[in-house]
Amino acid sequence: MQTRSEETQAHIKAAAISAFSQSGFDAASVADICGRAGVSKGAFYHHFPSKQDLFLVIMEDWLRGIDSLLFSKTESGVSVPRRIAEMGNKMGIIFQAASGQLPMFMEFMVQASRDATVWNAVIAPYRRFQQQFAALLEQGVQEGSIQPDADVEQAAHALISLAVGILLQGVVDSRAADWKGVTNAGVAMIIDGITRGEG
Amino acid sequence: MQTRSEETQAHIKAAAISAFSQSGFDAASVADICGRAGVSKGAFYHHFPSKQDLFLVIMEDWLRGIDSLLFSKTESGVSVPRRIAEMGNKMGIIFQAASGQLPMFMEFMVQASRDATVWNAVIAPYRRFQQQFAALLEQGVQEGSIQPDADVEQAAHALISLAVGILLQGVVDSRAADWKGVTNAGVAMIIDGITRGEG
Repeated sequence: MQTRSEETQAHIKAAAISAFSQSGFDAASVADICGRAGVSKGAFYHHFPSKQDLFLVIMEDWLRGIDSLLFSKTESGVSVPRRIAEMGNKMGIIFQAASGQLPMFMEFMVQASRDATVWNAVIAPYRRFQQQFAALLEQGVQEGSIQPDADVEQAAHALISLAVGILLQGVVDSRAADWKGVTNAGVAMIIDGITRGEG
Repeated sequence: MQTRSEETQAHIKAAAISAFSQSGFDAASVADICGRAGVSKGAFYHHFPSKQDLFLVIMEDWLRGIDSLLFSKTESGVSVPRRIAEMGNKMGIIFQAASGQLPMFMEFMVQASRDATVWNAVIAPYRRFQQQFAALLEQGVQEGSIQPDADVEQAAHALISLAVGILLQGVVDSRAADWKGVTNAGVAMIIDGITRGEG
């Protein structure tokens, strides 16, 4: 059960997500967020030192959610190509969870390209994803399911780029494609390209 | 040779790109753009009805540049997988041409997710890219270089998603990877996944 304080924080975060999504980080004011959340400015600043801190907390929540979804424990004995295909499947969950909140994703990127604090907060987990994917692919090389000459660093970048690109297009043009299907097909193509075809 | 009027327009566009990149579309004012370009507001409005019109012209220039770069005439007799690999190579040129202007790319996406006019302006050429890629891949199926059971629509989406994701990451973390190398490797993996391995 949530404490009263956790409940207030959750309200403020939800209000901020909708304010940032609609108006953008710069235009959304603390007063606006408080109005939507039904809390006083005093309550706001009791929980979050600043609008930027709140923004960073939302971003970290979001990245932690993806992290735990993708790299949660799987049964042993599952080949790396299968595990990666399974991760592709989970992108559907990320899409659903993020639906309506996806303009926030744009805000993360825009602010990261302009503000060093945000940049550092987004870049550390992003580089960790990269390392986790590369390590997983390397494990595939070890187990013999991925070609020994595959460049695991490049393949990890390609998989993440694919996911980022799909997420971005999903924001801008959600109905242009079955994005979950595109994710599965794209991941399968990349995996086919680096496996012995024994998937 | 540029006429005086074309020169003024080019100055205004360059100033707007740097203003939008630095401050964002909303915060960058016409006065700011005029100051950077060294032109009067009268001159500005003589060339562009509004800040949004200027923004759309810049976006259309950018998309047209990519279009003509990627789909420019190639010698006949080149297989589709080779032509797509060559397109991957050209992404390097897009990166170079866009360097410093890349935050603009973010702005296009953010504005498109908020404004129907911008959305329509970005979505039409984007869907054209999708159709051009799918048609090219279908040609590969016809010529026998791409597997007959390949889903060309999905593969086209995957290639574009990869490119979009790489472009976005290049904006946010230009030094994290050799993005040109990632492009080539990612395109090669996808192509390997849908060809008979005869590239």
